[in-house]
Amino acid sequence: MARIGIIGSEGRMGHALSRAIAAAGHECSGGIDRGGDPAQLADASDVLVDFSAPAALEANLHAAIGAGIPILIGTTGLEDRHHVFIDNAARDIAVLQTGNTSLGVTLLAHLVREAAARLGPEWDIEVLEMHHRMKVDAPSGTAFLLGEAAAEGRGIALADNSERGRDGQTGRRAEGAIGFASLRGGTVVGEHSVIVAGEQERIVLSHCAEDRMIFAHGAVRGAAWLTGQPGGRYTMPEVLGL
Amino acid sequence: MARIGIIGSEGRMGHALSRAIAAAGHECSGGIDRGGDPAQLADASDVLVDFSAPAALEANLHAAIGAGIPILIGTTGLEDRHHVFIDNAARDIAVLQTGNTSLGVTLLAHLVREAAARLGPEWDIEVLEMHHRMKVDAPSGTAFLLGEAAAEGRGIALADNSERGRDGQTGRRAEGAIGFASLRGGTVVGEHSVIVAGEQERIVLSHCAEDRMIFAHGAVRGAAWLTGQPGGRYTMPEVLGL
Amino acid sequence: MARIGIIGSEGRMGHALSRAIAAAGHECSGGIDRGGDPAQLADASDVLVDFSAPAALEANLHAAIGAGIPILIGTTGLEDRHHVFIDNAARDIAVLQTGNTSLGVTLLAHLVREAAARLGPEWDIEVLEMHHRMKVDAPSGTAFLLGEAAAEGRGIALADNSERGRDGQTGRRAEGAIGFASLRGGTVVGEHSVIVAGEQERIVLSHCAEDRMIFAHGAVRGAAWLTGQPGGRYTMPEVLGL
Amino acid sequence: MARIGIIGSEGRMGHALSRAIAAAGHECSGGIDRGGDPAQLADASDVLVDFSAPAALEANLHAAIGAGIPILIGTTGLEDRHHVFIDNAARDIAVLQTGNTSLGVTLLAHLVREAAARLGPEWDIEVLEMHHRMKVDAPSGTAFLLGEAAAEGRGIALADNSERGRDGQTGRRAEGAIGFASLRGGTVVGEHSVIVAGEQERIVLSHCAEDRMIFAHGAVRGAAWLTGQPGGRYTMPEVLGL
Repeated sequence: MARIGIIGSEGRMGHALSRAIAAAGHECSGGIDRGGDPAQLADASDVLVDFSAPAALEANLHAAIGAGIPILIGTTGLEDRHHVFIDNAARDIAVLQTGNTSLGVTLLAHLVREAAARLGPEWDIEVLEMHHRMKVDAPSGTAFLLGEAAAEGRGIALADNSERGRDGQTGRRAEGAIGFASLRGGTVVGEHSVIVAGEQERIVLSHCAEDRMIFAHGAVRGAAWLTGQPGGRYTMPEVLGL
Repeated sequence: MARIGIIGSEGRMGHALSRAIAAAGHECSGGIDRGGDPAQLADASDVLVDFSAPAALEANLHAAIGAGIPILIGTTGLEDRHHVFIDNAARDIAVLQTGNTSLGVTLLAHLVREAAARLGPEWDIEVLEMHHRMKVDAPSGTAFLLGEAAAEGRGIALADNSERGRDGQTGRRAEGAIGFASLRGGTVVGEHSVIVAGEQERIVLSHCAEDRMIFAHGAVRGAAWLTGQPGGRYTMPEVLGL
Repeated sequence: MARIGIIGSEGRMGHALSRAIAAAGHECSGGIDRGGDPAQLADASDVLVDFSAPAALEANLHAAIGAGIPILIGTTGLEDRHHVFIDNAARDIAVLQTGNTSLGVTLLAHLVREAAARLGPEWDIEVLEMHHRMKVDAPSGTAFLLGEAAAEGRGIALADNSERGRDGQTGRRAEGAIGFASLRGGTVVGEHSVIVAGEQERIVLSHCAEDRMIFAHGAVRGAAWLTGQPGGRYTMPEVLGL
Repeated sequence: MARIGIIGSEGRMGHALSRAIAAAGHECSGGIDRGGDPAQLADASDVLVDFSAPAALEANLHAAIGAGIPILIGTTGLEDRHHVFIDNAARDIAVLQTGNTSLGVTLLAHLVREAAARLGPEWDIEVLEMHHRMKVDAPSGTAFLLGEAAAEGRGIALADNSERGRDGQTGRRAEGAIGFASLRGGTVVGEHSVIVAGEQERIVLSHCAEDRMIFAHGAVRGAAWLTGQPGGRYTMPEVLGL
């Protein structure tokens, strides 16, 4: 059982984390929001989970270092300088920063990398995603994460090998390309499929998120795992032992 | 049993028609290609099936009129003037012109129209298709056919309500829009899905073509059905009694 | 705007109904549970929604008749005598009894009936469903509802034409059979697919429930629709104008 | 380029192998059927591919040993004594025996094992397959192969943990069970999905065979790979470097 402190406790994710901590049999050692004191929270915790804002990151890392406890960072919109803060903190404490804490997506990315590596470039890779009607960008961040995993497996750069927004006279599919397509509609939480299409056979690797709670469950699992790690910078795949 | 004459007998579709005619227990009364005499073929046939070229259409229609038999036209690339020829011929004989002779797609379009009509505009409609890596345009003609069916069901014009090629900062989905997305890869013959996504539930209506033979089977069924019809212009849905 | 009274207000469905009534812009005129007085509730309402227990049905119908208002019945486990009560009540008031109030499932059943009717018996029909790991019976009630729709479309009796629980040396698929298969796992709310598989092509008609709220939304829509109907017994398809 | 000899050359698979050998740029060194001389064929070949009958296995292995060349065995219906023959032959030559030569299925099994190993027993595993209406047994051999891969990943015995043929009052899903469901219809070559369903998220790993040629393509790739291996018994995953 770990005592987990929540930074960003009043947001949608903060409430989800609170429920996920209880569901996993851990203890919520408290929560803070803008203006709260992370050092005090850190002193009462075995690990911090930060889903707040980039501006708060430096103070949150200092609090964790001061208390000698690990921290999981799910805050989005980080820039290069934030990653420098994280790398510095990782000399002293265990830090896990990630854009997607779902265990299922983390595993899927691993399987996609493996499939892309094992099947040659004569197998075409496509990434399909569907999200609710309110989403304002395409493809989704997770679609890119999966495309990156495929590109890594192939040993190619995603940026040079993407086919996006197909429409009109596209010509034949480029060899080695990784295609992306986006569907929008209703209230879909998030569905992703990676299709690997070869000569008369196909493999499809999919993830379906039924509820945003999965991101909270994965963050709690990651946080608990961090409490047993020495200083260093970690990733979600390591939480699953991948 | 009908005697079916094939115009365009040496093409990929011509060979498929020949096998489909035999499989359905009909008789192939012969076949012609560029330079062949459609009038002679028509005299030996109960119905003609034309998968040749727009340039041959006028002569083929005259042959059918001369013999007083119906004709099914699957030729693509027709222009307005070809449709005038067809309308004129339809005063004398039964003519069915279509861009997709698959029974499954014909039925699917009917179901899509029905779903779009019954579920209000707060249900978002998306059309997804996947085809082999050699296809040079997107979305597929059948995707448009399905999108048209949805638009008809909604009583809107597809041209004013399409979202295609989503990529980047798209903003929220437009209300009432019909979205299209295209996947390319491997040797996929053709798969289409129409997703109707509402508040926390979704309907998905799909068609999967395993082999191009289905277009031949549907054309033969349509041709046999035509032999019992009076003069006039017909569509595939009528063949199914839709 | 309709004033909707909830019978069975403290159950999971009662709470969902309360939220669905608000979301649709109607007014919740009150709620009762075991021991509550349906006549008093009926006097304050334009329509009743009953998701309680079979034992309470007769009193609930009397209350509705007394107030001269319609009632929607979603209670499960009804027996023949309950249907006699309902038929009697329907001489005076509008009554809608159903085992599934989802608009999407209602429409899907309609599309399945249509597909089964239009495509001949050489197309094989399969019903697949997936539900969460706690479900204790298989196939689901909704799978049967969809199988019944297919059987109606075919003009056959489902009871004489089902293939269920395939395992071992099954022999070839019986012609005209309607097959059922059930998946169980995780927290899946409910997914149903009807596959109509012909010669080298397939149609798949699916429904995905993201949240149990859809049953509440459909019940509210049905209840509001009932307020405009004369006495009689109605079904969900009529709510959609099917 | 390898010279590949076909044992069972007149069967459906024999013809497919002949085309697959040409497509891969190898040379078909000949083919035999019942009554043919495998020793003569072996002398003219770099490797043998055997899709004949169990009764012929011993002679075929002797021929390969005599010529000092490897052999790939895709014959089904092998019994324990045939595996003894194979093990003995593998002391001298490279032998690969398998029930499924598709590269896609081989990779999928690998990914399933990985997923099952990484995600704990609180994730439920289901295997779904669909095949054409003529298939006489259920689940398919490939479904069992995938179930075995999942069981290996979990470190459990499949025989003790299967749920098959669900129908009626099944009770709740058993923890740790691997479920199987089978669909039959039309002309489906073979589709398999492994669903790993957790708390509010799911991973689905699927394979779709468009044509039986994929088994021939995989066999040819396996045979060519064998020509570079020392004596021993090999499996399809090794061909892919898994």
